[in-house]
Amino acid sequence: MEERVIKAALLGLGTVGTGVYKVLKNQEEEMTAKLGCKVKISRILVRNLEKAARKLGDDSLLTNDWKEIVADPSIEIVIEVMGGIHPAKEYILDALKAGKHVVTANKDLIAVHGRELLEAAGETKADFMFEAAVAGGIPIIGPLKQSLAGNHMTEVMGIVNGTTNFILTRMTQDGMEFKDALALATELGYAEADPTADIDGLDAGRKVAILASVAFNSRVVFDDVYIEGITKISAKDIRYAKEMGCDIKLLGVARNTEEGVEAYVCPMLIPSTHPLATVNDSYNAVFVHGDAVEDAMFFGRGAGEMPTASAVVGDIFEIVRNILAGCCGRIGCTCYKQLPVKKMESTYNRYFLRLHVEDKCGVLAEMTEVFAKYHVSVAQIIQKERKDDDCAEVVVITAKVREGDFKTAIQELSNRASVKRISKTIRVYGN
Amino acid sequence: MEERVIKAALLGLGTVGTGVYKVLKNQEEEMTAKLGCKVKISRILVRNLEKAARKLGDDSLLTNDWKEIVADPSIEIVIEVMGGIHPAKEYILDALKAGKHVVTANKDLIAVHGRELLEAAGETKADFMFEAAVAGGIPIIGPLKQSLAGNHMTEVMGIVNGTTNFILTRMTQDGMEFKDALALATELGYAEADPTADIDGLDAGRKVAILASVAFNSRVVFDDVYIEGITKISAKDIRYAKEMGCDIKLLGVARNTEEGVEAYVCPMLIPSTHPLATVNDSYNAVFVHGDAVEDAMFFGRGAGEMPTASAVVGDIFEIVRNILAGCCGRIGCTCYKQLPVKKMESTYNRYFLRLHVEDKCGVLAEMTEVFAKYHVSVAQIIQKERKDDDCAEVVVITAKVREGDFKTAIQELSNRASVKRISKTIRVYGN
Repeated sequence: MEERVIKAALLGLGTVGTGVYKVLKNQEEEMTAKLGCKVKISRILVRNLEKAARKLGDDSLLTNDWKEIVADPSIEIVIEVMGGIHPAKEYILDALKAGKHVVTANKDLIAVHGRELLEAAGETKADFMFEAAVAGGIPIIGPLKQSLAGNHMTEVMGIVNGTTNFILTRMTQDGMEFKDALALATELGYAEADPTADIDGLDAGRKVAILASVAFNSRVVFDDVYIEGITKISAKDIRYAKEMGCDIKLLGVARNTEEGVEAYVCPMLIPSTHPLATVNDSYNAVFVHGDAVEDAMFFGRGAGEMPTASAVVGDIFEIVRNILAGCCGRIGCTCYKQLPVKKMESTYNRYFLRLHVEDKCGVLAEMTEVFAKYHVSVAQIIQKERKDDDCAEVVVITAKVREGDFKTAIQELSNRASVKRISKTIRVYGN
Repeated sequence: MEERVIKAALLGLGTVGTGVYKVLKNQEEEMTAKLGCKVKISRILVRNLEKAARKLGDDSLLTNDWKEIVADPSIEIVIEVMGGIHPAKEYILDALKAGKHVVTANKDLIAVHGRELLEAAGETKADFMFEAAVAGGIPIIGPLKQSLAGNHMTEVMGIVNGTTNFILTRMTQDGMEFKDALALATELGYAEADPTADIDGLDAGRKVAILASVAFNSRVVFDDVYIEGITKISAKDIRYAKEMGCDIKLLGVARNTEEGVEAYVCPMLIPSTHPLATVNDSYNAVFVHGDAVEDAMFFGRGAGEMPTASAVVGDIFEIVRNILAGCCGRIGCTCYKQLPVKKMESTYNRYFLRLHVEDKCGVLAEMTEVFAKYHVSVAQIIQKERKDDDCAEVVVITAKVREGDFKTAIQELSNRASVKRISKTIRVYGN
């Protein structure tokens, strides 16, 4: 009997595309035993044919014409690893309409147009999978939709951007300032030439939107996510946090509360005893809490050629198994709820606050009076001994306070004559 | 249209059975939206009808007659959470033959009879799932078979027994001796009345057999796994390990090497910087290394009513989706290779060694001469100052050495007059 071959097309031959090509090669011998058939990349869409031919040492699979792929009925799976919204979105919609299954690693696209894409897949009973869009090689979308499906998830949070975690780790372990750590990250290839999407938290924000949607069975889009980056964090903030038993991490947090979904990305203090505090360098980790599983954490490489390809190929193999069993589309869109997303000002958080005040009697009393007016309780306070410019530096960690109230308190505080400046406010993870 | 209901029977109403019952209740409202139908426990097999009726406050679902369940064609899924080999094995084989799908949490059974059960499921194209058999609520079987399927896994290892991890954590953090930490574990309900299976490493050994089989696509059974427990570990061992930058954990290790599969459970020193070293108390964690994903770790509750039930219900939901999509049995037995399993003496490990020697000139030279004869290199050595009984205590960490060679070296060393006693040998994880 002739061995069955399922044909796939690869859109893009950058870092991830090259990884997918390699991983499929590595699996070639075992595929039939593992899946019941072979998967073969039969076409690769690239912009620059010559460059791609040099990369592969072979130009027989290359094309720069999307129509050749979408019109080829022998291609059953389209693997989109080109990135960006356009034309990736149009290609994926075309492919789904043509009855093909799609795997994508495109977080920008899913975080904004996830619903439309999943609905399009639903119409043709096609598989549409995106494990690689969040936390690289770490299995998280699959486990949330399957092994953990018996839970009401109340929280999914974590370190979902390797570039910023590398930068913060260097600032913590080597006392570097942000700009030096960023320069090192760029030099070592952990940061892109334009690092904005990473350091401003946008990349993490997209992943939080996707994670929240899958974990809470309710669509959360990129615009719903409140985002702050790490550019204002200083080595001093990290040092003071350490004195208070905490590390500073860029956390993506999504919570499923009675009043709606909270979704935000910001640098946060986290107790040094928390499993996430020990996730360093470019590693990622996603922490979940559900009513049955309680706490669970998934740790690994959040980016990179081979780890991301591991996730993409996992999805490809899942689709192949579905094709052979005749059950494509068996898990479609899982967002069957319509939960409201809360505004950031109505969330409750603890705060770390550094401020410079006049070094005289009664100033702390004035500060705590303002705090009391807006329901801000002080959990920890340290007065520093420094006396340059006649000021005392005070570091405070508050109890949980409504964001809106805290902002108002800070506003009022900064207008008081005795308060020279508010140097920093950073949220604190946990109760 | 009438809502479809898929009926399931629960075998056993102990800790896990009760958890499964609760989790399914908690999911009742969402099931149809999530899965496309409801799942209902329509029968519960128990030994003691009265006790079970008191527990549930309802006796309408209870039976002590297996035939009532296996002969009922309306029951499509059997959930075996009674434990033990017999009659669980017979019930599962009966159920599969009757065309029912099976979910089990029974590691004892899978670690010994996994192949026979999976083959029986294959014959009727039934689903047979066992996520809960390893590491409680932590998704690991599912991710290995699916999201990570594009990898050649070279290692899967971890902390897969909560009782012993609790005991070792107390010994490490509070300096307790083994017997006191065990007494505390028993008092707090972390250890069973007869703790043998946990403290002797048998429970962890079963999980290693299952993990290795799934990760390496080749059957490893309980008898293949070399096992040592933690009963001989002392607070002093842990203190000395700390001085050398390590913690002591009961590790289950499986490696896929050129010469065959290594599978063992034993207490090991692990560098305190390794992510597993920070997994404390009754938590479990499984670490995997694959050619594409590189390092990944899965952390969570390894036991307990609700976490284990989370894994069982994840499997139930997976089967329900397969029933509705008409693709049961789509992932059957994944052990398509027949790799040899290595004997422990032909594995290579580093060793931590504590020995008491005569406190005189030339003794270290004699020791290192014996080591050299059997290819044992010393990586770290500390001579302790203690002089009770005129002996010096020497603590050594070796480089990697063939187990058989090390044992012979130790044998020869213990016959030398200058060596008073070999107090302890413990393996060291890593290169």
